[in-house]
Amino acid sequence: MIVEVDGKRIEVEEGTTLGQIFKRLNIKGAIGGKVGDRIYDLQTPLREGGKVKVIREGDEEGLEILRHSLAHIMAQALKEIYGKERVHLGIGPTTEDGFFYDVEVEGHSIKEEDLPKIEEKMREIVRKNYPIKRKKLSREESLRLFKELGEKYKLEIIENIPKDEEITVYEQGDFVDLCKGPHLPSTGLAKNFKLTSISGAYWKGRSDAPQLQRIYGIAYWDEESLKKRLKFYEEVKERDHRRLGRELEFFYIDESVGAGLVLWLPKGGIYRKVLEDFLREEHLKRGYKLVFTPHVGKAKLWQISGHLEHYKENMFPEMKMEEESYFVKPMNCPFHIAIYKERVRSYKDLPFKIFELGSVYRYELSGVLHGLLRVRGFTQDDAHIICTKEQVKDVIKEVLDFAFFVLGKFGFKKYKIYLSTKPESYIGSEEEWEVSQNALREALQELKKPYEIDEGGGAFYGPKIDVKIEDALGRLWQCSTVQFDFNLPKRFDMTYVGKDNRRHRPYMIHRALLGSIERFTGILLEHHKGNLPFWLSPVQVKVLTLSKDCEDFAREVSELLRENQIRAEEDFSSSRLSAKIRRAELEKVPYMVIVGRREKEERRVSLRKKGEGDLGRFTLEEALNLFKGMLK
Amino acid sequence: MIVEVDGKRIEVEEGTTLGQIFKRLNIKGAIGGKVGDRIYDLQTPLREGGKVKVIREGDEEGLEILRHSLAHIMAQALKEIYGKERVHLGIGPTTEDGFFYDVEVEGHSIKEEDLPKIEEKMREIVRKNYPIKRKKLSREESLRLFKELGEKYKLEIIENIPKDEEITVYEQGDFVDLCKGPHLPSTGLAKNFKLTSISGAYWKGRSDAPQLQRIYGIAYWDEESLKKRLKFYEEVKERDHRRLGRELEFFYIDESVGAGLVLWLPKGGIYRKVLEDFLREEHLKRGYKLVFTPHVGKAKLWQISGHLEHYKENMFPEMKMEEESYFVKPMNCPFHIAIYKERVRSYKDLPFKIFELGSVYRYELSGVLHGLLRVRGFTQDDAHIICTKEQVKDVIKEVLDFAFFVLGKFGFKKYKIYLSTKPESYIGSEEEWEVSQNALREALQELKKPYEIDEGGGAFYGPKIDVKIEDALGRLWQCSTVQFDFNLPKRFDMTYVGKDNRRHRPYMIHRALLGSIERFTGILLEHHKGNLPFWLSPVQVKVLTLSKDCEDFAREVSELLRENQIRAEEDFSSSRLSAKIRRAELEKVPYMVIVGRREKEERRVSLRKKGEGDLGRFTLEEALNLFKGMLK
Repeated sequence: MIVEVDGKRIEVEEGTTLGQIFKRLNIKGAIGGKVGDRIYDLQTPLREGGKVKVIREGDEEGLEILRHSLAHIMAQALKEIYGKERVHLGIGPTTEDGFFYDVEVEGHSIKEEDLPKIEEKMREIVRKNYPIKRKKLSREESLRLFKELGEKYKLEIIENIPKDEEITVYEQGDFVDLCKGPHLPSTGLAKNFKLTSISGAYWKGRSDAPQLQRIYGIAYWDEESLKKRLKFYEEVKERDHRRLGRELEFFYIDESVGAGLVLWLPKGGIYRKVLEDFLREEHLKRGYKLVFTPHVGKAKLWQISGHLEHYKENMFPEMKMEEESYFVKPMNCPFHIAIYKERVRSYKDLPFKIFELGSVYRYELSGVLHGLLRVRGFTQDDAHIICTKEQVKDVIKEVLDFAFFVLGKFGFKKYKIYLSTKPESYIGSEEEWEVSQNALREALQELKKPYEIDEGGGAFYGPKIDVKIEDALGRLWQCSTVQFDFNLPKRFDMTYVGKDNRRHRPYMIHRALLGSIERFTGILLEHHKGNLPFWLSPVQVKVLTLSKDCEDFAREVSELLRENQIRAEEDFSSSRLSAKIRRAELEKVPYMVIVGRREKEERRVSLRKKGEGDLGRFTLEEALNLFKGMLK
Repeated sequence: MIVEVDGKRIEVEEGTTLGQIFKRLNIKGAIGGKVGDRIYDLQTPLREGGKVKVIREGDEEGLEILRHSLAHIMAQALKEIYGKERVHLGIGPTTEDGFFYDVEVEGHSIKEEDLPKIEEKMREIVRKNYPIKRKKLSREESLRLFKELGEKYKLEIIENIPKDEEITVYEQGDFVDLCKGPHLPSTGLAKNFKLTSISGAYWKGRSDAPQLQRIYGIAYWDEESLKKRLKFYEEVKERDHRRLGRELEFFYIDESVGAGLVLWLPKGGIYRKVLEDFLREEHLKRGYKLVFTPHVGKAKLWQISGHLEHYKENMFPEMKMEEESYFVKPMNCPFHIAIYKERVRSYKDLPFKIFELGSVYRYELSGVLHGLLRVRGFTQDDAHIICTKEQVKDVIKEVLDFAFFVLGKFGFKKYKIYLSTKPESYIGSEEEWEVSQNALREALQELKKPYEIDEGGGAFYGPKIDVKIEDALGRLWQCSTVQFDFNLPKRFDMTYVGKDNRRHRPYMIHRALLGSIERFTGILLEHHKGNLPFWLSPVQVKVLTLSKDCEDFAREVSELLRENQIRAEEDFSSSRLSAKIRRAELEKVPYMVIVGRREKEERRVSLRKKGEGDLGRFTLEEALNLFKGMLK
């Protein structure tokens, strides 16, 4: 087999390692290499020939190797601290900025305060610079080894390795782990890392399996990148919507009510009302039909849709009543279809666009629930569009245009668009796929939106467009989806009467712009650090008094604002103005109206903008116009 | 024992019948009499002495006797038509305007078209003027008799009659029925009756019991009253919200989705949005905190509240998930309480008024479901007010005032108010009952609202006020409720920190103004015959064109209206104007704007009001002002 390194082509035997090749070519300082798409360490026999890109310390492509080894170093540290026989290892892969390991420490639950100690032990292992050695074992040898080590989870992994696959371990000092690699040549190269957090994790992700602890770390070649990433984590923490949500009285998840079930608190309730009003108005303007459907329905609906067969584990449990089975709805589709089918529809009724703020319930493992971002009950801005083949493109264009308009209203201007096309196994005709994919593509082109294609990434029942918004920290969040469905129209026998007076099968599109109101609100709070756009702020203006004798004028001002649909609250307390301002800023109120004696005499108000400070004095009309202007 | 009839007092032996007494006093033409609150026929031994009011044919108080006998006459007719052995009788009581009988006819389901035949047979029995005879039987005799007759349901009734109670039957011709009476002396007096409808009814109201058929009839002494009542039924039928709801595209109940579960169709969706917007705005204006809570919650909530113990049969079935039990919520209280308890509340936070449009689910037997009036899923305009003792009266007054304002907005101006006071068995302190009942009473007095007292009719946990609205047909419907609760604050350990810096137990009030949005909408549709008030109409104005060449101006008009928040729809079809007007009237659109060539030239529109006709020509500004004025 021929390999080419730094322009030199040589012939090597199959099974040769990069270590051997680099030695032969006198290449120094390498820690691995890339052949095709695959990263090899120095000890792993090459599977294929071709160009080899040398990977050295500091190379982006080597981060994977570095992080992989750090997972082992952490595992070794844990064994040294808690004792080999007490620590049972699960899996320890890399992440986009580091690594984690799922572990069980008998009789001990690892806490945040244990992390520095573990880090210290890891640094010791790094300093000792143990060589890392790859070894091939027979199935019997490996089973014997991990049985001796008491590594029950590793034994389960070995049993699931296909018979014809090679089993390898990596050793460093007296630590050995079942692993395919790649790894560093020695522990001494892993200098810049930090353990960041601990969470629960089910073994194999199954709720009936033992719960392990997942310890996360991040790692880079250089200190600067590590520091930058740590700063990002701090920023993430500062923006945590769970803390903001409670502080701003937006929402609360009470374990005694139920994990993943959101209680919207008073300020969040106002915000949600504004959001709902906006969505309903905008949908009505665009010709959507607003409907309301129940939160429970007969099992038969999901039997027809196929969800009971393929999706039951994501649904809340069955309820049996009067010899019928009912389910809490995990999606609105069957109800919208029932509304479509309520009477015979003609081509004149199409496109038939049904919209609902539909609250749905889906089962998620309690371990993966996370604030508003991962919940069990959420409200979708859900629409189903039923149309003819000829209408498909215009419908898609209008939906995408609508999506960008809505996302923009919330302050999201950057996004990535993905078009997912026909997978290997699919239903629906070639024509349906062709028409739909072309519509999606052409709509994006006509709207001049750049997009990426996820070839073969569509659902088996139709292609889709996903829009991921980029937040202030550069994180991407899946929000809008436009999804064709060639499955449900057939399963529910949906038809329309065409110009030819015969029944035809319509096209159907599922779409959501925000996705889930709960999740979107979580993203929004983090994106804006709680400083929502003016139109969405539960309290838009706080009216503050300087002294008791200007209360009457201050009240007149706040009433004037409210009469003009500005959400104004009063703080006429006896606190000092600076305290009142601080309070309003903590509540993230965008504007403050300040009324003192002078203001009262002149019938003017002083305005203050959060984060910017004093704006000067305004007449009531000017102030009102300023606020009204922001709502346009 | 002494009885007094028409001013004559005589002494009679116990067990004497009115028939014997009237004979002795030579009183003719009586069919029964009233002693105290009890109606006796001529054959039933008197239980008590006292004043006897003679009841004759035509007397209001004798309707009960007439209707009771008609139930027997119908049963006899059924047996003669379908054969004695095929007809099994359930129960056959009187109603407010007639009677019904629950029956099973083996191998036959009685249809509407069978009713005339049954009526004919009943008239034959009336013409034959059979004497109706009361007989006392021993338990054994009665069991033997009804076993011979194959009356399986009657046997069940006999087995449940307490041992010390008398068993009687009434005979007419060869028909005999287990019955306590009272009955006419003979069948010939029952002249004015009509069978009206058939429905399903479970034996003993239990869903696991056999389903019988309930045949309804109405009956009066005179033809005129009967006709008047039949006309009322026609009116009721004409206003049937189930038909209107479908025709006006308001709602639809699809058995395949689930009985009692409402799908709001597009026009109903707009109406509901307007309704929700109105309710939310008005609540926010009045200082209520708007919240949103989930539709499912942990069983524990209803265990604490006591509902799992006393109310479980009205709840949707349990869902078991991750070793926890969940229920779909039958009420919002525990969630609102969780929000109250989310942080420590001080007296400064009270009254704490939480409002939600909360969708709840309650189990009802499928047999009793009826359109929107009796459903399994509905949305309450639900609020909980938590306050101090001192605040109670003002809170109640404000709630009642709010209720009358809201009901008035929907066109209900007449209502009856009921104040229900402390029952025999109750919880809560004397002070709590005293304070609450006084507050309810004084609030009504200060608002100058007449009310009736239902002494002892309160719930065990607190007194309440119910407001029943009177509709266009004079029917009363329970809507607003203001209910004190001395139970939940204790069970959920709700407190507030008082001025004294110590924890106190607050007062709590449940209240709903409309009750259930679904039920209220049913009532509203029937009350207005579908002609909703302008502000609630899904389409407020229909813009109609006279010819194709005025479409541009017509479009300008409809866009102008929509820009001004008037819900306008266009009918620019090629139909004739008269057809367009008819269509708009069928859709119950309150106003039509008509645009022809002359209107286009003059930049004016012709207005037409549904039910009133042409209003003349208006400038655009005048028309707009007219509509806007109606929304004030």
